[in-house]
Amino acid sequence: MIPIWRLWRGDARVDAIDPGDRGFAYGDGLFETILVHRGVPVWWDAHMARLALGCARLGIPNPHADFLRHQADALIDGRARGVLKLILTRGVGARGYAPPTDALSTVAMCLSDPPPLPPRAGLTLRWCATPLAIQPRLAGIKHLNRLEQVLARAEWSDADPDTSSIHEGLMCDTSGRVVAATSANLFVLRDGRWLTPPVADCGIAGICRGWILDHIQGAGEATLSRADVESADAVILCNAVRGILAVAAVGQRRWAMHEAVRGLRAALALAEPAFAAIESAASESL
Amino acid sequence: MIPIWRLWRGDARVDAIDPGDRGFAYGDGLFETILVHRGVPVWWDAHMARLALGCARLGIPNPHADFLRHQADALIDGRARGVLKLILTRGVGARGYAPPTDALSTVAMCLSDPPPLPPRAGLTLRWCATPLAIQPRLAGIKHLNRLEQVLARAEWSDADPDTSSIHEGLMCDTSGRVVAATSANLFVLRDGRWLTPPVADCGIAGICRGWILDHIQGAGEATLSRADVESADAVILCNAVRGILAVAAVGQRRWAMHEAVRGLRAALALAEPAFAAIESAASESL
Repeated sequence: MIPIWRLWRGDARVDAIDPGDRGFAYGDGLFETILVHRGVPVWWDAHMARLALGCARLGIPNPHADFLRHQADALIDGRARGVLKLILTRGVGARGYAPPTDALSTVAMCLSDPPPLPPRAGLTLRWCATPLAIQPRLAGIKHLNRLEQVLARAEWSDADPDTSSIHEGLMCDTSGRVVAATSANLFVLRDGRWLTPPVADCGIAGICRGWILDHIQGAGEATLSRADVESADAVILCNAVRGILAVAAVGQRRWAMHEAVRGLRAALALAEPAFAAIESAASESL
Repeated sequence: MIPIWRLWRGDARVDAIDPGDRGFAYGDGLFETILVHRGVPVWWDAHMARLALGCARLGIPNPHADFLRHQADALIDGRARGVLKLILTRGVGARGYAPPTDALSTVAMCLSDPPPLPPRAGLTLRWCATPLAIQPRLAGIKHLNRLEQVLARAEWSDADPDTSSIHEGLMCDTSGRVVAATSANLFVLRDGRWLTPPVADCGIAGICRGWILDHIQGAGEATLSRADVESADAVILCNAVRGILAVAAVGQRRWAMHEAVRGLRAALALAEPAFAAIESAASESL
């Protein structure tokens, strides 16, 4: 499946992004990346809640979730599996930063293939040199200003034999505290508890991160140093599309598969059948 | 003149921004805002030098300045006065932060009317509550991640009678150091020297700022607090489109027009006839 795009200005379908769109000019908008399973967008309500929070923070009118769901369902059209990306921007404006008062929001939806299955042995991570800036006004929400993640992800290349075995990179903030991977949140197992960095200063409040915090006993937020990560009993990454991914290595540190990781993945698979499907496909690929 | 847009993918004209453009997805690109005077883009070489620096920093292939100049001249088409905005993005990519290795850059140019003349009495500024994050990797260059400026500019509205007299807002970084206005650099006169905050941690290395640092004796960089600004002998804002603008008030502090501001504006007008035209038009409007 090649990516299929649909675009709206307000609630009217349009053929193209206006070059004066503030998403293009300033990254003035938000996005959500949603797993599609058996024709349904998974964790839809949680994605809409985060989008609404982002709209409130940026002062962008919140589009009706019913409209978005109707259009998402029409685009998904019963497909068994895929990824739905939703972009919402403040719409078209004149030159200058002042937000237009009467702009219609732009909505873009893209349906594409699901990512490949994670490696059975777990992910190999590196430490990124690019830091995340501390900016409480933009922390937590999934806005379109993502140059930090782009620069971090550009630190290694799948085409370079020296780095082609790297699956993801961990980022610290400018004070040296661990925050997240470039496109996933991070949990570490320490003293029997799953801990993840807070997202009050930077980082994104991931949907799968939220699920773990809400549903796994003892899971919580904690400030983590690189040493805290490397000395953890186990490490996982998580996001809304790939679920929970075991980490096999960060830099020189290696981990065998930990029973607690299996338990965490099993709990998610039980609660959300979409992730049971990933477990099942991974087993079949043995 | 309504804004006139022209778009290219690589060096081929295209009709629309692809919704998969990384400028739209992540703000993965750069821009320049250039004054047009008597058919010529003012300070062209300085704009191209900053664009090249931004390309190097972000790892975006630098388009040939000759190509950009040829297209800029064709769009300007001899017009007496205007503003040329140039946007350069990494081009179209698949989902995910990893920069595509084979993408053609997107170039967008927009020609629009010049801004209105500045108020004769000088600008009235406010202090913005939105801070600028400290991020040396992105400081200095004019990239497309501009949500901080958008949030700062949204703190006051021209439509609100309580704030309609505000012309610009000053921003500090998250450590409380003064950085710049939302869309202009700042200089303060202290002990007979024009001083501007460094842009190594955040902010943009403005073209007019660079001209002042290079051409005005004693001008230099200095870390400035809010108190340093409010106790200065004079304050100006500057950018490449509006030149040097006298500041009449920051919050409760007011300044009469200072001879040094007149001198600074006269020096610029002498060096760059485009700004002499602004001086002349301002005098005629007396």
